[in-house]
Amino acid sequence: METGNLNKHISGQFNVELENVRSQVLAMGGLVEQQLENALLASNTGDKDLAREVIENDRKVNELEVNIDQECVRIIAKRQPTAGDLRLMMAIIKTITDLERIGDMAEHAAQTVLHADRSLPDVVQVNLEALGEQIIRMLRDVLDAFARMDADAAYRVHSRSKKVDSLHEGLVRQLLTYMMGDSRSIPFMLEVQLASRSLGRVGDHCKNIAEYIIYFVKGTDVRHTSPEEIKRLLKQD
Amino acid sequence: METGNLNKHISGQFNVELENVRSQVLAMGGLVEQQLENALLASNTGDKDLAREVIENDRKVNELEVNIDQECVRIIAKRQPTAGDLRLMMAIIKTITDLERIGDMAEHAAQTVLHADRSLPDVVQVNLEALGEQIIRMLRDVLDAFARMDADAAYRVHSRSKKVDSLHEGLVRQLLTYMMGDSRSIPFMLEVQLASRSLGRVGDHCKNIAEYIIYFVKGTDVRHTSPEEIKRLLKQD
Repeated sequence: METGNLNKHISGQFNVELENVRSQVLAMGGLVEQQLENALLASNTGDKDLAREVIENDRKVNELEVNIDQECVRIIAKRQPTAGDLRLMMAIIKTITDLERIGDMAEHAAQTVLHADRSLPDVVQVNLEALGEQIIRMLRDVLDAFARMDADAAYRVHSRSKKVDSLHEGLVRQLLTYMMGDSRSIPFMLEVQLASRSLGRVGDHCKNIAEYIIYFVKGTDVRHTSPEEIKRLLKQD
Repeated sequence: METGNLNKHISGQFNVELENVRSQVLAMGGLVEQQLENALLASNTGDKDLAREVIENDRKVNELEVNIDQECVRIIAKRQPTAGDLRLMMAIIKTITDLERIGDMAEHAAQTVLHADRSLPDVVQVNLEALGEQIIRMLRDVLDAFARMDADAAYRVHSRSKKVDSLHEGLVRQLLTYMMGDSRSIPFMLEVQLASRSLGRVGDHCKNIAEYIIYFVKGTDVRHTSPEEIKRLLKQD
Protein backbone atom coordinates (compact mmCIF):
# COMPACT_ATOMS: atom_id res chain seq x y z
CA MET A 1 0.00 0.00 0.00
CA GLU A 2 1.34 3.41 -0.99
CA THR A 3 0.49 6.08 1.50
CA GLY A 4 2.96 8.91 0.78
CA ASN A 5 4.91 10.55 3.55
CA LEU A 6 2.30 11.18 6.21
CA ASN A 7 3.57 11.70 9.75
CA LYS A 8 7.17 12.27 8.90
CA HIS A 9 8.21 15.72 9.98
CA ILE A 10 10.26 17.15 12.70
CA SER A 11 7.82 19.66 14.13
CA GLY A 12 5.34 17.84 16.36
CA GLN A 13 3.00 20.82 16.29
CA PHE A 14 2.99 20.87 12.49
CA ASN A 15 2.04 17.20 12.55
CA VAL A 16 -0.85 17.97 14.86
CA GLU A 17 -2.07 20.72 12.53
CA LEU A 18 -1.90 18.50 9.46
CA GLU A 19 -3.70 15.71 11.29
CA ASN A 20 -6.35 18.18 12.39
CA VAL A 21 -7.09 19.45 8.92
CA ARG A 22 -7.14 15.90 7.57
CA SER A 23 -9.70 14.96 10.23
CA GLN A 24 -11.80 17.96 9.23
CA VAL A 25 -11.81 16.78 5.62
CA LEU A 26 -12.91 13.33 6.77
CA ALA A 27 -15.64 14.87 8.93
CA MET A 28 -16.80 16.88 5.92
CA GLY A 29 -16.71 13.70 3.82
CA GLY A 30 -18.77 11.86 6.46
CA LEU A 31 -21.37 14.62 6.47
CA VAL A 32 -21.58 14.68 2.67
CA GLU A 33 -21.97 10.89 2.64
CA GLN A 34 -24.79 11.20 5.19
CA GLN A 35 -26.43 13.91 3.08
CA LEU A 36 -26.27 11.75 -0.02
CA GLU A 37 -27.66 8.71 1.83
CA ASN A 38 -30.52 10.75 3.24
CA ALA A 39 -31.29 12.32 -0.14
CA LEU A 40 -31.49 8.86 -1.70
CA LEU A 41 -33.56 7.50 1.17
CA ALA A 42 -35.93 10.47 0.87
CA SER A 43 -36.16 9.81 -2.85
CA ASN A 44 -36.90 6.10 -2.31
CA THR A 45 -39.53 6.66 0.36
CA GLY A 46 -40.88 10.06 -0.72
CA ASP A 47 -40.09 11.37 2.77
CA LYS A 48 -40.37 15.15 2.38
CA ASP A 49 -39.29 15.92 5.96
CA LEU A 50 -36.03 14.08 5.39
CA ALA A 51 -35.61 15.96 2.09
CA ARG A 52 -36.06 19.25 3.93
CA GLU A 53 -33.45 18.16 6.47
CA VAL A 54 -30.94 17.50 3.67
CA ILE A 55 -31.59 20.93 2.16
CA GLU A 56 -31.17 22.58 5.57
CA ASN A 57 -27.92 20.71 6.33
CA ASP A 58 -26.23 21.78 3.11
CA ARG A 59 -25.31 24.95 5.01
CA LYS A 60 -23.09 22.86 7.30
CA VAL A 61 -21.27 21.36 4.32
CA ASN A 62 -20.62 24.86 2.97
CA GLU A 63 -19.32 26.06 6.32
CA LEU A 64 -16.89 23.17 6.53
CA GLU A 65 -15.56 23.99 3.06
CA VAL A 66 -14.87 27.61 4.00
CA ASN A 67 -13.30 26.66 7.36
CA ILE A 68 -11.00 24.02 5.90
CA ASP A 69 -9.82 26.38 3.15
CA GLN A 70 -9.06 28.99 5.78
CA GLU A 71 -7.13 26.47 7.85
CA CYS A 72 -5.09 25.42 4.80
CA VAL A 73 -4.16 29.03 4.03
CA ARG A 74 -3.17 29.52 7.67
CA ILE A 75 -0.99 26.39 7.63
CA ILE A 76 0.68 27.30 4.33
CA ALA A 77 1.44 30.84 5.57
CA LYS A 78 2.75 29.68 8.94
CA ARG A 79 4.50 26.40 8.12
CA GLN A 80 5.57 27.09 4.54
CA PRO A 81 5.25 23.45 3.57
CA THR A 82 7.08 22.00 0.60
CA ALA A 83 7.09 18.65 -1.26
CA GLY A 84 4.64 16.11 0.18
CA ASP A 85 3.20 18.47 2.78
CA LEU A 86 2.42 21.08 0.15
CA ARG A 87 0.92 18.40 -2.11
CA LEU A 88 -1.27 17.35 0.82
CA MET A 89 -2.50 20.95 1.17
CA MET A 90 -3.22 21.09 -2.58
CA ALA A 91 -5.01 17.72 -2.48
CA ILE A 92 -7.16 18.93 0.42
CA ILE A 93 -7.98 22.29 -1.18
CA LYS A 94 -9.11 20.54 -4.35
CA THR A 95 -10.89 17.66 -2.59
CA ILE A 96 -13.17 19.89 -0.52
CA THR A 97 -14.34 21.71 -3.67
CA ASP A 98 -15.53 18.36 -4.99
CA LEU A 99 -17.06 17.36 -1.65
CA GLU A 100 -18.99 20.64 -1.57
CA ARG A 101 -20.32 19.95 -5.07
CA ILE A 102 -21.39 16.43 -4.06
CA GLY A 103 -23.26 18.13 -1.21
CA ASP A 104 -24.99 20.31 -3.81
CA MET A 105 -25.97 17.20 -5.79
CA ALA A 106 -27.54 15.68 -2.66
CA GLU A 107 -29.41 18.94 -2.10
CA HIS A 108 -30.61 18.91 -5.71
CA ALA A 109 -31.92 15.35 -5.34
CA ALA A 110 -33.70 16.41 -2.14
CA GLN A 111 -35.28 19.40 -3.91
CA THR A 112 -36.66 17.01 -6.53
CA VAL A 113 -38.30 14.92 -3.78
CA LEU A 114 -39.85 18.07 -2.33
CA HIS A 115 -41.36 19.09 -5.68
CA ALA A 116 -42.51 15.62 -6.68
CA ASP A 117 -46.28 15.36 -7.02
CA ARG A 118 -46.31 11.69 -7.93
CA SER A 119 -44.23 8.57 -7.26
CA LEU A 120 -41.80 6.94 -9.64
CA PRO A 121 -42.70 3.87 -11.73
CA ASP A 122 -41.25 0.81 -9.97
CA VAL A 123 -38.80 -0.01 -12.73
CA VAL A 124 -37.38 3.54 -12.68
CA GLN A 125 -37.21 3.42 -8.90
CA VAL A 126 -35.17 0.20 -9.02
CA ASN A 127 -32.67 1.71 -11.42
CA LEU A 128 -32.40 4.95 -9.49
CA GLU A 129 -31.67 2.92 -6.36
CA ALA A 130 -28.97 0.94 -8.20
CA LEU A 131 -27.36 4.22 -9.31
CA GLY A 132 -27.64 5.57 -5.77
CA GLU A 133 -26.00 2.49 -4.25
CA GLN A 134 -23.18 2.67 -6.75
CA ILE A 135 -22.32 6.33 -6.04
CA ILE A 136 -22.66 5.91 -2.27
CA ARG A 137 -20.17 3.05 -2.49
CA MET A 138 -17.82 5.12 -4.67
CA LEU A 139 -17.94 8.04 -2.24
CA ARG A 140 -17.40 5.77 0.77
CA ASP A 141 -14.45 4.03 -0.87
CA VAL A 142 -12.78 7.23 -2.04
CA LEU A 143 -13.11 8.72 1.45
CA ASP A 144 -11.61 5.56 2.84
CA ALA A 145 -8.74 5.83 0.33
CA PHE A 146 -8.31 9.46 1.41
CA ALA A 147 -8.20 8.52 5.10
CA ARG A 148 -5.38 6.06 4.40
CA MET A 149 -3.91 8.02 1.46
CA ASP A 150 -3.97 4.78 -0.47
CA ALA A 151 -3.24 5.38 -4.17
CA ASP A 152 -4.15 1.86 -5.24
CA ALA A 153 -7.55 2.04 -3.54
CA ALA A 154 -8.05 5.46 -5.16
CA TYR A 155 -7.31 3.94 -8.56
CA ARG A 156 -9.91 1.21 -7.97
CA VAL A 157 -12.55 3.90 -7.31
CA HIS A 158 -11.36 5.86 -10.35
CA SER A 159 -11.90 2.90 -12.65
CA ARG A 160 -15.51 2.48 -11.48
CA SER A 161 -16.80 5.81 -12.77
CA LYS A 162 -17.67 4.28 -16.16
CA LYS A 163 -20.16 1.98 -14.44
CA VAL A 164 -21.95 5.00 -12.94
CA ASP A 165 -22.11 6.59 -16.40
CA SER A 166 -23.71 3.52 -17.90
CA LEU A 167 -26.24 3.18 -15.08
CA HIS A 168 -27.18 6.83 -15.64
CA GLU A 169 -27.48 6.34 -19.39
CA GLY A 170 -29.73 3.30 -18.91
CA LEU A 171 -31.95 5.32 -16.62
CA VAL A 172 -32.19 8.18 -19.13
CA ARG A 173 -33.26 5.77 -21.87
CA GLN A 174 -35.94 4.40 -19.56
CA LEU A 175 -37.23 7.86 -18.68
CA LEU A 176 -37.35 8.65 -22.39
CA THR A 177 -39.64 5.69 -22.98
CA TYR A 178 -42.04 6.93 -20.32
CA MET A 179 -41.99 10.47 -21.68
CA MET A 180 -42.69 9.32 -25.22
CA GLY A 181 -45.47 7.02 -24.04
CA ASP A 182 -47.28 9.55 -21.86
CA SER A 183 -46.75 13.24 -22.49
CA ARG A 184 -48.30 14.18 -19.13
CA SER A 185 -45.39 12.44 -17.42
CA ILE A 186 -42.83 14.69 -19.14
CA PRO A 187 -42.43 17.50 -16.56
CA PHE A 188 -41.93 15.05 -13.70
CA MET A 189 -39.67 12.72 -15.69
CA LEU A 190 -37.55 15.70 -16.70
CA GLU A 191 -37.00 16.51 -13.03
CA VAL A 192 -36.07 12.91 -12.35
CA GLN A 193 -33.69 12.95 -15.29
CA LEU A 194 -31.94 16.05 -13.95
CA ALA A 195 -31.69 14.54 -10.47
CA SER A 196 -30.27 11.35 -11.97
CA ARG A 197 -27.75 13.45 -13.87
CA SER A 198 -26.72 15.17 -10.65
CA LEU A 199 -26.23 11.77 -9.02
CA GLY A 200 -24.19 10.64 -12.01
CA ARG A 201 -21.97 13.72 -11.53
CA VAL A 202 -21.15 12.45 -8.03
CA GLY A 203 -19.18 9.71 -9.77
CA ASP A 204 -17.11 12.36 -11.57
CA HIS A 205 -16.39 14.17 -8.33
CA CYS A 206 -15.28 10.91 -6.66
CA LYS A 207 -13.02 10.33 -9.65
CA ASN A 208 -11.51 13.79 -9.15
CA ILE A 209 -10.84 13.08 -5.47
CA ALA A 210 -9.18 9.78 -6.43
CA GLU A 211 -6.89 11.76 -8.76
CA TYR A 212 -5.87 14.15 -5.96
CA ILE A 213 -5.01 11.19 -3.71
CA ILE A 214 -2.81 9.73 -6.45
CA TYR A 215 -1.25 13.18 -6.96
CA PHE A 216 -0.41 13.40 -3.25
CA VAL A 217 1.05 9.90 -3.03
CA LYS A 218 2.91 9.76 -6.34
CA GLY A 219 3.65 13.44 -6.95
CA THR A 220 2.20 13.20 -10.46
CA ASP A 221 -0.87 15.06 -11.67
CA VAL A 222 -3.04 12.38 -13.31
CA ARG A 223 -5.98 14.55 -14.33
CA HIS A 224 -6.83 14.17 -17.99
CA THR A 225 -4.65 11.04 -18.09
CA SER A 226 -5.87 7.72 -19.45
CA PRO A 227 -6.66 4.93 -16.94
CA GLU A 228 -3.93 2.83 -18.60
CA GLU A 229 -1.28 5.48 -17.93
CA ILE A 230 -2.40 5.82 -14.30
CA LYS A 231 -2.19 2.05 -13.89
CA ARG A 232 1.34 2.07 -15.32
CA LEU A 233 2.36 4.88 -12.95
CA LEU A 234 1.07 2.99 -9.92
CA LYS A 235 2.87 -0.21 -10.92
CA GLN A 236 6.23 1.52 -11.31
CA ASP A 237 7.48 0.92 -7.81
CA MET B 1 -11.37 50.57 -7.81
CA GLU B 2 -10.01 48.01 -5.38
CA THR B 3 -7.21 45.97 -6.81
CA GLY B 4 -5.50 44.41 -3.78
CA ASN B 5 -1.77 44.57 -3.38
CA LEU B 6 -0.51 43.52 -6.81
CA ASN B 7 3.06 44.51 -7.68
CA LYS B 8 4.18 45.41 -4.23
CA HIS B 9 7.00 43.15 -3.16
CA ILE B 10 10.65 43.45 -2.75
CA SER B 11 11.83 40.57 -4.90
CA GLY B 12 11.71 41.60 -8.54
CA GLN B 13 11.98 37.98 -9.62
CA PHE B 14 8.99 37.01 -7.48
CA ASN B 15 6.99 39.78 -9.14
CA VAL B 16 7.92 38.40 -12.54
CA GLU B 17 6.79 34.92 -11.51
CA LEU B 18 3.45 36.15 -10.18
CA GLU B 19 2.87 38.23 -13.32
CA ASN B 20 3.69 35.18 -15.40
CA VAL B 21 1.22 32.91 -13.72
CA ARG B 22 -1.45 35.62 -13.86
CA SER B 23 -0.86 35.94 -17.60
CA GLN B 24 -1.21 32.20 -17.96
CA VAL B 25 -4.59 32.32 -16.22
CA LEU B 26 -5.69 35.10 -18.57
CA ALA B 27 -4.48 33.09 -21.56
CA MET B 28 -6.46 30.10 -20.29
CA GLY B 29 -9.47 32.39 -19.81
CA GLY B 30 -9.09 33.70 -23.37
CA LEU B 31 -8.98 30.17 -24.74
CA VAL B 32 -12.05 29.10 -22.76
CA GLU B 33 -13.91 32.21 -23.97
CA GLN B 34 -12.98 31.32 -27.55
CA GLN B 35 -14.16 27.74 -26.99
CA LEU B 36 -17.48 28.92 -25.64
CA GLU B 37 -17.97 31.37 -28.51
CA ASN B 38 -17.18 28.69 -31.06
CA ALA B 39 -19.48 26.17 -29.39
CA LEU B 40 -22.34 28.69 -29.48
CA LEU B 41 -21.55 29.65 -33.08
CA ALA B 42 -21.50 25.97 -34.04
CA SER B 43 -24.81 25.53 -32.29
CA ASN B 44 -26.36 28.53 -34.06
CA THR B 45 -25.13 27.54 -37.51
CA GLY B 46 -25.06 23.74 -37.15
CA ASP B 47 -21.38 23.81 -38.17
CA LYS B 48 -20.14 20.32 -37.25
CA ASP B 49 -16.52 21.01 -38.25
CA LEU B 50 -16.37 23.88 -35.81
CA ALA B 51 -17.98 21.67 -33.14
CA ARG B 52 -15.26 19.06 -33.73
CA GLU B 53 -12.61 21.77 -33.40
CA VAL B 54 -14.04 22.77 -30.00
CA ILE B 55 -13.98 19.15 -28.82
CA GLU B 56 -10.41 18.75 -30.01
CA ASN B 57 -9.24 21.98 -28.35
CA ASP B 58 -10.55 21.02 -24.93
CA ARG B 59 -7.26 19.15 -24.52
CA LYS B 60 -5.42 22.49 -24.57
CA VAL B 61 -7.65 23.86 -21.82
CA ASN B 62 -6.89 20.80 -19.68
CA GLU B 63 -3.16 21.16 -20.27
CA LEU B 64 -3.23 24.79 -19.17
CA GLU B 65 -5.03 23.82 -15.96
CA VAL B 66 -2.39 21.22 -15.08
CA ASN B 67 0.51 23.56 -15.97
CA ILE B 68 -0.82 26.50 -13.97
CA ASP B 69 -1.43 24.32 -10.92
CA GLN B 70 2.12 23.03 -11.18
CA GLU B 71 3.47 26.56 -11.44
CA CYS B 72 1.48 27.63 -8.35
CA VAL B 73 2.87 24.73 -6.33
CA ARG B 74 6.38 25.63 -7.48
CA ILE B 75 5.91 29.29 -6.50
CA ILE B 76 4.42 28.43 -3.10
CA ALA B 77 7.28 26.02 -2.33
CA LYS B 78 10.00 28.43 -3.50
CA ARG B 79 8.65 31.83 -2.45
CA GLN B 80 6.61 30.84 0.58
CA PRO B 81 4.08 33.60 -0.01
CA THR B 82 1.88 34.95 2.78
CA ALA B 83 -1.06 37.38 3.01
CA GLY B 84 -2.10 38.85 -0.35
CA ASP B 85 0.38 36.80 -2.38
CA LEU B 86 -0.90 33.57 -0.86
CA ARG B 87 -4.49 34.66 -1.42
CA LEU B 88 -3.58 35.32 -5.06
CA MET B 89 -2.25 31.75 -5.34
CA MET B 90 -5.44 30.40 -3.77
CA ALA B 91 -7.63 32.54 -6.04
CA ILE B 92 -5.73 31.26 -9.08
CA ILE B 93 -5.85 27.60 -8.01
CA LYS B 94 -9.63 27.84 -7.53
CA THR B 95 -10.26 29.96 -10.63
CA ILE B 96 -8.63 27.55 -13.05
CA THR B 97 -10.80 24.70 -11.74
CA ASP B 98 -13.86 26.73 -12.74
CA LEU B 99 -12.31 27.73 -16.09
CA GLU B 100 -11.63 24.08 -16.85
CA ARG B 101 -15.27 23.21 -16.08
CA ILE B 102 -16.48 26.04 -18.35
CA GLY B 103 -14.30 24.44 -21.03
CA ASP B 104 -16.12 21.16 -20.39
CA MET B 105 -19.48 22.92 -20.79
CA ALA B 106 -18.35 24.30 -24.17
CA GLU B 107 -17.28 20.80 -25.16
CA HIS B 108 -20.65 19.42 -24.09
CA ALA B 109 -22.51 22.02 -26.18
CA ALA B 110 -20.28 21.09 -29.14
CA GLN B 111 -21.04 17.37 -28.64
CA THR B 112 -24.76 18.19 -28.84
CA VAL B 113 -24.22 19.93 -32.19
CA LEU B 114 -22.35 16.89 -33.45
CA HIS B 115 -25.19 14.52 -32.52
CA ALA B 116 -27.99 16.79 -33.70
CA ASP B 117 -30.00 15.26 -36.54
CA ARG B 118 -32.37 18.21 -36.92
CA SER B 119 -32.32 21.97 -36.44
CA LEU B 120 -33.87 23.87 -33.56
CA PRO B 121 -37.25 25.60 -33.85
CA ASP B 122 -36.59 29.33 -34.44
CA VAL B 123 -38.06 30.44 -31.15
CA VAL B 124 -35.86 28.01 -29.19
CA GLN B 125 -32.86 29.12 -31.24
CA VAL B 126 -33.48 32.76 -30.35
CA ASN B 127 -33.64 31.99 -26.64
CA LEU B 128 -30.58 29.77 -26.74
CA GLU B 129 -28.70 32.60 -28.43
CA ALA B 130 -29.85 35.05 -25.75
CA LEU B 131 -28.60 32.67 -23.05
CA GLY B 132 -25.34 32.24 -24.95
CA GLU B 133 -24.79 35.99 -25.26
CA GLN B 134 -25.47 36.48 -21.58
CA ILE B 135 -22.93 33.87 -20.43
CA ILE B 136 -20.28 35.01 -22.92
CA ARG B 137 -20.63 38.51 -21.53
CA MET B 138 -20.44 37.24 -17.95
CA LEU B 139 -17.28 35.26 -18.72
CA ARG B 140 -15.68 38.18 -20.54
CA ASP B 141 -16.47 40.59 -17.71
CA VAL B 142 -15.26 38.27 -14.96
CA LEU B 143 -11.99 37.69 -16.83
CA ASP B 144 -11.65 41.44 -17.20
CA ALA B 145 -12.27 41.86 -13.45
CA PHE B 146 -9.64 39.16 -12.84
CA ALA B 147 -7.11 40.94 -15.08
CA ARG B 148 -7.52 44.15 -13.06
CA MET B 149 -8.34 42.39 -9.77
CA ASP B 150 -11.32 44.69 -9.51
CA ALA B 151 -13.65 43.58 -6.69
CA ASP B 152 -16.46 45.96 -7.66
CA ALA B 153 -16.49 44.72 -11.25
CA ALA B 154 -16.46 41.15 -9.89
CA TYR B 155 -19.48 41.95 -7.76
CA ARG B 156 -21.37 43.30 -10.80
CA VAL B 157 -20.79 39.98 -12.60
CA HIS B 158 -21.81 38.09 -9.46
CA SER B 159 -25.16 39.83 -9.31
CA ARG B 160 -25.97 38.88 -12.92
CA SER B 161 -26.08 35.12 -12.39
CA LYS B 162 -29.79 35.23 -11.53
CA LYS B 163 -30.52 36.54 -15.03
CA VAL B 164 -28.79 33.51 -16.53
CA ASP B 165 -30.88 31.23 -14.33
CA SER B 166 -34.11 32.81 -15.47
CA LEU B 167 -33.11 32.67 -19.16
CA HIS B 168 -32.35 28.97 -18.69
CA GLU B 169 -35.66 28.34 -16.92
CA GLY B 170 -37.58 30.08 -19.69
CA LEU B 171 -35.84 27.92 -22.25
CA VAL B 172 -36.66 24.74 -20.32
CA ARG B 173 -40.34 25.67 -20.20
CA GLN B 174 -40.28 26.24 -23.95
CA LEU B 175 -38.60 22.89 -24.62
CA LEU B 176 -41.23 21.25 -22.42
CA THR B 177 -44.00 22.66 -24.61
CA TYR B 178 -42.36 21.18 -27.71
CA MET B 179 -41.86 17.82 -26.06
CA MET B 180 -45.45 17.63 -24.88
CA GLY B 181 -46.75 18.68 -28.29
CA ASP B 182 -44.67 16.23 -30.35
CA SER B 183 -43.32 13.11 -28.68
CA ARG B 184 -40.93 12.44 -31.57
CA SER B 185 -39.08 15.63 -30.65
CA ILE B 186 -38.35 14.40 -27.11
CA PRO B 187 -34.91 12.78 -27.57
CA PHE B 188 -33.53 15.82 -29.41
CA MET B 189 -35.16 18.34 -27.06
CA LEU B 190 -33.71 16.46 -24.10
CA GLU B 191 -30.24 16.90 -25.56
CA VAL B 192 -30.89 20.59 -26.08
CA GLN B 193 -32.17 20.90 -22.53
CA LEU B 194 -28.99 19.33 -21.15
CA ALA B 195 -26.80 21.58 -23.30
CA SER B 196 -28.78 24.59 -22.10
CA ARG B 197 -28.28 23.44 -18.53
CA SER B 198 -24.53 23.19 -19.15
CA LEU B 199 -24.54 26.73 -20.50
CA GLY B 200 -26.50 27.88 -17.46
CA ARG B 201 -23.82 26.30 -15.24
CA VAL B 202 -21.26 28.61 -16.89
CA GLY B 203 -23.01 31.44 -15.03
CA ASP B 204 -22.38 29.61 -11.72
CA HIS B 205 -18.70 29.17 -12.55
CA CYS B 206 -18.35 32.87 -13.42
CA LYS B 207 -19.99 33.65 -10.08
CA ASN B 208 -17.42 31.44 -8.34
CA ILE B 209 -14.55 33.25 -10.07
CA ALA B 210 -16.05 36.60 -9.02
CA GLU B 211 -16.02 35.32 -5.42
CA TYR B 212 -12.32 34.39 -5.63
CA ILE B 213 -11.49 37.88 -6.93
CA ILE B 214 -13.34 39.45 -4.00
CA TYR B 215 -11.54 37.04 -1.65
CA PHE B 216 -8.17 38.12 -3.03
CA VAL B 217 -8.91 41.84 -2.86
CA LYS B 218 -10.79 41.98 0.44
CA GLY B 219 -9.31 38.99 2.26
CA THR B 220 -12.80 37.69 3.05
CA ASP B 221 -14.26 34.44 1.77
CA VAL B 222 -17.67 35.39 0.35
CA ARG B 223 -18.78 31.97 -0.87
CA HIS B 224 -22.20 31.02 0.43
CA THR B 225 -22.72 34.65 1.45
CA SER B 226 -25.79 36.64 0.44
CA PRO B 227 -25.38 39.31 -2.27
CA GLU B 228 -26.44 41.94 0.30
CA GLU B 229 -23.62 40.96 2.64
CA ILE B 230 -21.09 41.09 -0.19
CA LYS B 231 -22.34 44.54 -1.17
CA ARG B 232 -21.95 45.71 2.42
CA LEU B 233 -18.40 44.33 2.57
CA LEU B 234 -17.41 46.14 -0.63
CA LYS B 235 -18.85 49.44 0.58
CA GLN B 236 -16.93 49.32 3.85
CA ASP B 237 -13.97 51.31 2.68
